[in-house]
Amino acid sequence: MREIVIGAAQMGAIQRADPREAVVDRMITLLDQAKSAGCTLVVFPELCLTTFFPRWYIEDQAEVDSWFETEMPNPATQPVFDRARAHGIAISFGYAEKTPQGRHFNTQLLTDARADIVGTYRKVHLPGHSEFDPERSFQHLEKRYFEPGDLGFPVFRNMDAWMGMLICNDRRWPEAYRELGLQGAELIMLGYNTPIGNSQNPDESPSMRAFHSELSCQAGAYQNAAWVVAVAKAGDEDGHPLCAGSIIVAPDGTIAAKAQTDGDELLVHACDMDATEFGKSTIFDFKRHRRIEHYGRITGQTGVIYPDGTKG
Amino acid sequence: MREIVIGAAQMGAIQRADPREAVVDRMITLLDQAKSAGCTLVVFPELCLTTFFPRWYIEDQAEVDSWFETEMPNPATQPVFDRARAHGIAISFGYAEKTPQGRHFNTQLLTDARADIVGTYRKVHLPGHSEFDPERSFQHLEKRYFEPGDLGFPVFRNMDAWMGMLICNDRRWPEAYRELGLQGAELIMLGYNTPIGNSQNPDESPSMRAFHSELSCQAGAYQNAAWVVAVAKAGDEDGHPLCAGSIIVAPDGTIAAKAQTDGDELLVHACDMDATEFGKSTIFDFKRHRRIEHYGRITGQTGVIYPDGTKG
Repeated sequence: MREIVIGAAQMGAIQRADPREAVVDRMITLLDQAKSAGCTLVVFPELCLTTFFPRWYIEDQAEVDSWFETEMPNPATQPVFDRARAHGIAISFGYAEKTPQGRHFNTQLLTDARADIVGTYRKVHLPGHSEFDPERSFQHLEKRYFEPGDLGFPVFRNMDAWMGMLICNDRRWPEAYRELGLQGAELIMLGYNTPIGNSQNPDESPSMRAFHSELSCQAGAYQNAAWVVAVAKAGDEDGHPLCAGSIIVAPDGTIAAKAQTDGDELLVHACDMDATEFGKSTIFDFKRHRRIEHYGRITGQTGVIYPDGTKG
Repeated sequence: MREIVIGAAQMGAIQRADPREAVVDRMITLLDQAKSAGCTLVVFPELCLTTFFPRWYIEDQAEVDSWFETEMPNPATQPVFDRARAHGIAISFGYAEKTPQGRHFNTQLLTDARADIVGTYRKVHLPGHSEFDPERSFQHLEKRYFEPGDLGFPVFRNMDAWMGMLICNDRRWPEAYRELGLQGAELIMLGYNTPIGNSQNPDESPSMRAFHSELSCQAGAYQNAAWVVAVAKAGDEDGHPLCAGSIIVAPDGTIAAKAQTDGDELLVHACDMDATEFGKSTIFDFKRHRRIEHYGRITGQTGVIYPDGTKG
């Protein structure tokens, strides 16, 4: 048995006016709870240091950049790393990254139990749009503020296990899980900021939104025989409600733990990395069952090409 | 609206001693029910003309070949085509195909409303094993009796819609749905013979087996914004019980209809092909959101390669 007691640290709303220092205090409170609960790894949400700013249309680049971190750790976030190190807890959290070259990514980091960063992932599947869209009930400007991740889907050795990360919309894409699964990922950590309504379909219910999130995480877990930890930023941010429902999914696709509130809430589950072995060695033993000679369209074309040659 | 009233014709057990003619009579009864219910397309299960013979270890090739069809239609199955034509119902069903060249495939056909065959699919993802396995509680010799399909995942224009097929274990593989989705598939038809227990894990419950089947079909539907019709061969075949639970899944991943018995049962749902448009044009608008430059492992390697270079 290779057990990792994982804390999924759901976070409630962060208002636009909330400074990073206030958020960091909340993260530290969650880390203290995690220590008491015996956790050795804690996963926080996507862009967990600030409000979900891509809902705001901002034209001034300096104002855009104020939502980004230019180094990590930095003075505002150093206390999180310090507390994690003191507790001997590895952490993973999402933040907006501006590189020294001025590039902007939606990023998630992973540390070891000494709070040293051992891995970084940059979100590949950016949802939404890049220009102001008057037809939406609210904006989702991720394609404006970020460029797609340039690191692929890396897998890291940490805590005697193979670990990968995804971010928010990535969780709906089976290609993302499969890239991780093909590197032997046993644990996939992801955070999300998902509006409780669909900006393009007022009839889509909150329960349907939650269903789609769970369905995607559960299928990704089952079909790659991996643990999936999916952590929400929840609550109402300046009048924009977000989905809660953080979950820890077992390698058989079943939900092992689920958040009950829409605020800061620590979800704890003891995850045995060896529980991935059965699926990986039987029905999803890729080397015996996959037929890559028939998967050419998946990497050969981006969009739909109908059999008559027209493009979708 | 492009509505197709689809009948998912679940079939109960077919015993090893049952002749094809008896099975064909049952298929015709289901077609008559479908006509009364207003269906214009009926989907039958995988290998629906015989018992699920890959559970039997057979060494005599002539006996193996007795489970295969060398032409389609043939005298035994012609009455199904005749009745479908008389009713103006398109049909899809699975059978064991032996080609004129002596090749063996697990195959499914699709006809138009005149019962002319417009498409054929050969199962790509063969589960199980090729030699007698004394460690299993029962055999699953698909890798012995069939070779993997050689047609890829074709999509056909039929009844003013784009249609594709999968067979049984294919439904667990997101690559299979994605190949169809990248050709614009609006309807995916599949049949299955799934043992109610896992031959390699006596603790896996029937409800877990059903969950995995539904999870895979629902994720495949949602993530490609397509209707999925999944039809069981159910019941107890010579002491070997099979999963029932045939379902029709909507393009939003929800289950629109589900079988209630483990016998011959017609499940009917009016499926609007235009209901696929919302998902295909928004969150799963592939051309805007997929990032094929990061999917290289999916076609570049069959099995797991860990980041340290070792193979799984």
